[in-house]
Amino acid sequence: MLSEFSLIDRFFARRAARARAAADAKGVASAATLGIGDDCALLSPSAGETLAISTDMLVEGRHFFADIDPRALGHKALAVNLSDLAAMGAQPQAFTLAFSLPRADEAWLAAFSDGLFEIAERFNCELIGGDTTAGPLNLCLTVFGSVPPHVALRRDAARPGDDIWVSGTLGDARAGLGVARGEWQAANADDAATFRHALERPEPRVALGLALRGLAHAALDISDGLAGDLMHILERSQMNATVNVDALPRSTALSRLPSDVQRRCTVAGGDDYELCFTAPPAARAAIEKVSDNVGLRATRVGTINASDSATTPPTIAWHDAAGAPLTLTLQGFDHFHAD
Amino acid sequence: MLSEFSLIDRFFARRAARARAAADAKGVASAATLGIGDDCALLSPSAGETLAISTDMLVEGRHFFADIDPRALGHKALAVNLSDLAAMGAQPQAFTLAFSLPRADEAWLAAFSDGLFEIAERFNCELIGGDTTAGPLNLCLTVFGSVPPHVALRRDAARPGDDIWVSGTLGDARAGLGVARGEWQAANADDAATFRHALERPEPRVALGLALRGLAHAALDISDGLAGDLMHILERSQMNATVNVDALPRSTALSRLPSDVQRRCTVAGGDDYELCFTAPPAARAAIEKVSDNVGLRATRVGTINASDSATTPPTIAWHDAAGAPLTLTLQGFDHFHAD
Repeated sequence: MLSEFSLIDRFFARRAARARAAADAKGVASAATLGIGDDCALLSPSAGETLAISTDMLVEGRHFFADIDPRALGHKALAVNLSDLAAMGAQPQAFTLAFSLPRADEAWLAAFSDGLFEIAERFNCELIGGDTTAGPLNLCLTVFGSVPPHVALRRDAARPGDDIWVSGTLGDARAGLGVARGEWQAANADDAATFRHALERPEPRVALGLALRGLAHAALDISDGLAGDLMHILERSQMNATVNVDALPRSTALSRLPSDVQRRCTVAGGDDYELCFTAPPAARAAIEKVSDNVGLRATRVGTINASDSATTPPTIAWHDAAGAPLTLTLQGFDHFHAD
Repeated sequence: MLSEFSLIDRFFARRAARARAAADAKGVASAATLGIGDDCALLSPSAGETLAISTDMLVEGRHFFADIDPRALGHKALAVNLSDLAAMGAQPQAFTLAFSLPRADEAWLAAFSDGLFEIAERFNCELIGGDTTAGPLNLCLTVFGSVPPHVALRRDAARPGDDIWVSGTLGDARAGLGVARGEWQAANADDAATFRHALERPEPRVALGLALRGLAHAALDISDGLAGDLMHILERSQMNATVNVDALPRSTALSRLPSDVQRRCTVAGGDDYELCFTAPPAARAAIEKVSDNVGLRATRVGTINASDSATTPPTIAWHDAAGAPLTLTLQGFDHFHAD
């Protein structure tokens, strides 16, 4: 087994070397002074910047289906980590990849590494180290980006009166999961393909995250669903929020599903990897401009409100387009009954 | 499952916060400007230094037995990563921990985190982020250290005429594995405990690695056995080596096993986590002095030789104490027969 797995290591090392050569040809400087093949990689953030670091573990059956296209898996494994850098306003620099595999299937590995290096090269993110071992399929990536510390988009920076924004559209990935599980059906094959693409090929919003430096206050990426993830901003910023459920941006495909499914997918769906961020109303025009520049819609969906108490858990007040309050339940939303 | 695993995250976050407070009380500055709880941690190497990064994945059945004491597993998971920093001459700063667990067993997690934080605090290595998920037991750590780039102990820096040194003693962990597998028996219960301790509680040679900055040329940590690991230095430095098998340092416990078992364990045993390094003969006195200072024996075991060709695979010429050449086989050593 060992020699087989050493071979895999070399296979990835060769791909990394080719990617490095391609980056050199484009004039992209490497942040790594030493990459694969030593006890450690050596990495330096740019002068005056700090290193943003995020790690994610992806397990079969929980984060992807066993029959996932390995090329899509390679894409997604890095995409979800790059999404964390985007949410911090950090510029991708490098990543490490550790994985365990039941067996060394060359075709599977070739497709997986194709997907991985395709997105890595697109974001100039260099593979600088890793580990390969025999075991149940498990992928662990750690990603490194560079950001000036004072402009990092932190979760604890929301201020009273901030607008709450989300990028792109929400809910397509959850809609795709529902189609795969038989919870509902897409209106047509194109819509089904849209949902599946969202689930398997999330796009990290790196350009938007970089453009929001100095504009946005708090930010994060939506991986577990807006309802849960927005709470992380509120908890760390000690704020409350008001959100218009009907303002949540959705794709044409999602808008063809029943209204309760739309709400469930946009509010509580996971795997969106869009950015949720807060910014003062004075920044509205600037945000619309940078969102135009990066070609990605940004939509205002609510407001940050001061919290009465630092010890009370934060709350999100949901309402519909008409301003009627809604209560969020496990099944979705109910109109609020005063009695 | 989700809330249960969120609970674990908070459990580790609380331990990390306590460790941070303990470090603050000792006056140890944090390299992290932002730790657990945001999309990314923010980490800066010291001024003029670069970040050394290593990642390791530990899988049940391959890197540890299912019945391992969870406290020992917590220790070993971080120890083997710190060992990579030691081999680079880097000062530990921080680590991330991602793991999948079949179920959230609180007693197991308490013991595991005790072992983990005990060694983390001893080396002032701060937990700055991570990920927890349900799945087959798998631990993935990424560790960060700080080192001035020009004194990092790289694998490609061996020079002709360098002495080859190893720290501590070799082979006890492999002897412990052999006892557990029934391949051989320890001479007595104390020896068995010595072997088991070596296997479960490797000690990263951080102080020695730091002391070797500016003295050693090439270095690595011995994780797969000296024979295989020394080849990594030779390959990357394009050198050959001569090694005296009988000079390899061994514990009193190991010296009570049969001579062929001793050779097998010292040369081809894994999990030693001692340092193997090369240095010019002029550095001998200085190396003995720093090795005294850190209280860890360093032993000269061989010599680096120039290679005739950059394209020929490197070779290690093994010999015994009398200078008689030995050939290494899968079973151990044979005396070389000229016929």
